[in-house]
Amino acid sequence: MTAMLDRELEGMTAISLEQAVAAPYCGLLLADAGARVIKVERPDGDFARLYDHGADGESVWFAWLNRGKESIAVDLNNPDDAALLHRLIDKADIFLHNLAPGALERRGFGGEALRQTNAGLITCQISGYGDHGTAAQMKAYDTLVQAESGICSVTGTPEQPSRAGVSICDIATGLTAFSAILRALIQRGRTGSGLDLSVSLFDVMADWMNMQMLVYRYLGHAPARTGLTHPVIAPYGPYETSDGQIMIAIQSNHEWQNFCKTVLERPELGADPRFVDNTARVENRPVMDEAINAVFSKRGRDELMAILREHKIACARISSVEDLSNHEFLRQTQIHFGNAELMAADLPVLTAGPRRSHVPKLNEHGTAIRREFAEG
Amino acid sequence: MTAMLDRELEGMTAISLEQAVAAPYCGLLLADAGARVIKVERPDGDFARLYDHGADGESVWFAWLNRGKESIAVDLNNPDDAALLHRLIDKADIFLHNLAPGALERRGFGGEALRQTNAGLITCQISGYGDHGTAAQMKAYDTLVQAESGICSVTGTPEQPSRAGVSICDIATGLTAFSAILRALIQRGRTGSGLDLSVSLFDVMADWMNMQMLVYRYLGHAPARTGLTHPVIAPYGPYETSDGQIMIAIQSNHEWQNFCKTVLERPELGADPRFVDNTARVENRPVMDEAINAVFSKRGRDELMAILREHKIACARISSVEDLSNHEFLRQTQIHFGNAELMAADLPVLTAGPRRSHVPKLNEHGTAIRREFAEG
Repeated sequence: MTAMLDRELEGMTAISLEQAVAAPYCGLLLADAGARVIKVERPDGDFARLYDHGADGESVWFAWLNRGKESIAVDLNNPDDAALLHRLIDKADIFLHNLAPGALERRGFGGEALRQTNAGLITCQISGYGDHGTAAQMKAYDTLVQAESGICSVTGTPEQPSRAGVSICDIATGLTAFSAILRALIQRGRTGSGLDLSVSLFDVMADWMNMQMLVYRYLGHAPARTGLTHPVIAPYGPYETSDGQIMIAIQSNHEWQNFCKTVLERPELGADPRFVDNTARVENRPVMDEAINAVFSKRGRDELMAILREHKIACARISSVEDLSNHEFLRQTQIHFGNAELMAADLPVLTAGPRRSHVPKLNEHGTAIRREFAEG
Repeated sequence: MTAMLDRELEGMTAISLEQAVAAPYCGLLLADAGARVIKVERPDGDFARLYDHGADGESVWFAWLNRGKESIAVDLNNPDDAALLHRLIDKADIFLHNLAPGALERRGFGGEALRQTNAGLITCQISGYGDHGTAAQMKAYDTLVQAESGICSVTGTPEQPSRAGVSICDIATGLTAFSAILRALIQRGRTGSGLDLSVSLFDVMADWMNMQMLVYRYLGHAPARTGLTHPVIAPYGPYETSDGQIMIAIQSNHEWQNFCKTVLERPELGADPRFVDNTARVENRPVMDEAINAVFSKRGRDELMAILREHKIACARISSVEDLSNHEFLRQTQIHFGNAELMAADLPVLTAGPRRSHVPKLNEHGTAIRREFAEG
């Protein structure tokens, strides 16, 4: 029997002053790995609680990001509550937050100050663009950072830049912060000392844009926006079947010949000089697409996918959200939020045992935590 | 002086049978954290070496993903080379790969078999859709997984679905695998035992699609594709300045009134019943946009951004790749590949000391590694 990941952060406590998506996603991953995650909310709660009302009146977004945590409402303008937060952090391993840069330092919750009484504390700040100067002043909603970092300029059609339809800046940054905290835990295991971590959405996206930026810098042009179609490989894009679109991707002449023979059942096209290599196929894309569509449009999507798989032609459905929701490969997990029971896509890293499924109401654990961390 | 992350994986060795993007990105992160990463390539090399020729004839993509590693070419069909790979893995902490599912098990490199002689070994497989049945047969290029997982269906304009312009499936999965390996190292620190990890591109993207899927499941509709414009908040989208587009995002009536007074210098619009709340502003978006464009079109992009920041209105440039390349917030790092010296966006997690910048030629360390790991 092979060992699995099994709540390896059990015994660790993370205090997370988190809101919206980026830090909550990091907190979710810490909780899933076994840490006790205490979500510290403003008296009126993480505003993500109001994003929608799909979970028995509560937000499904919030449910996804906050299962497995405890919640306490804290008013940082109240000195008793500020002192409570200090006591919480004094006993913690990790202090995570995504408030505006500087907001916590001004209140005495900077990493240096906190490590005076808790030398092993790992602090992690998530910001939009960093914590200095102009960068610190800029609001950093996901779509804005997608725009500022150039993601939108390479996404969409030639006419229309678009945002990536998922909050990639927020989620990627939450995951990056999680990896940084794990690194810090490993380092602390060697040194005994805590440390300061700082991750910005912009820095994460700039790294993810390296391919595009390096092509621009060293090949002299930024990659074009081409919707779903590959700009310089053909056929590589969407085709119509009788009941929806699918994508195919053919990257060699051998694959093309095989495709013509076995899928199109027109072996002569494999030798046709108009399609003899990728350059020719890109040049003659319209007539090539016509030949493909003539065959594809007569068959159903799933039938065609099975044929393509059998002949090792790379393909995919262009799934709608409904298709994803019903997908045979989808691994699911239960989430409980009040009376609502939701089914969501599970986290991608397999972990032993049942997952933590409970989503806290605002301040659900406030009384118990205040008792546990009472003064003196 | 605050401590920083400082090559905390020093002393660890990772053997990475990696190609293309997902596993190489994970290997890059391991190398940056201080591990010795030995990239095992086919005799003709990771095909990503041929993606482009922007780095003195070598690929800039490859340079970005492979700095800081050693390279050895190995022919797994040659029994001597297969035995060498066994000796390498026997001394390693981590064995990472993204070959087709099952390919390594068939050759005796499954995790269970390898842990017979190296009980602490952490193995990590990256696949497209998992390693069983139909899923294992499907080729998993980044754009295909974006399509299959529904990302494309929520990205783009109402008329035209699009891929996210960066390889988010590959990069996100490499980062997820990195976090899983760090978790396994922490667990091994407690138990002494290695374990098997398996991460698929599809599972990572399904989790990232949770917001969209939960909205579909529990609110009865999938979010619409709306290019750059927010479907249900206004103003939230792109506007023309005299020298390029910018995005603004206004999420409350108070912000709207402040915006009208200080930026548009038309305080009466703040009280205008056509724009009095978000519902009204969404309904009257064309005339609202006209009023905004009338002011924005007369000013330069950077000037307007400064005004918006000053008045705490959320805003961003819609950066081109060139804008990103010249961005004042961009943190950069040097990469050396043969005679080429490249500047790339640095990794987002700050680490002490100089970064590893050297990109290996194919088999650059082959002779030295074969000597170091010679039989007997």
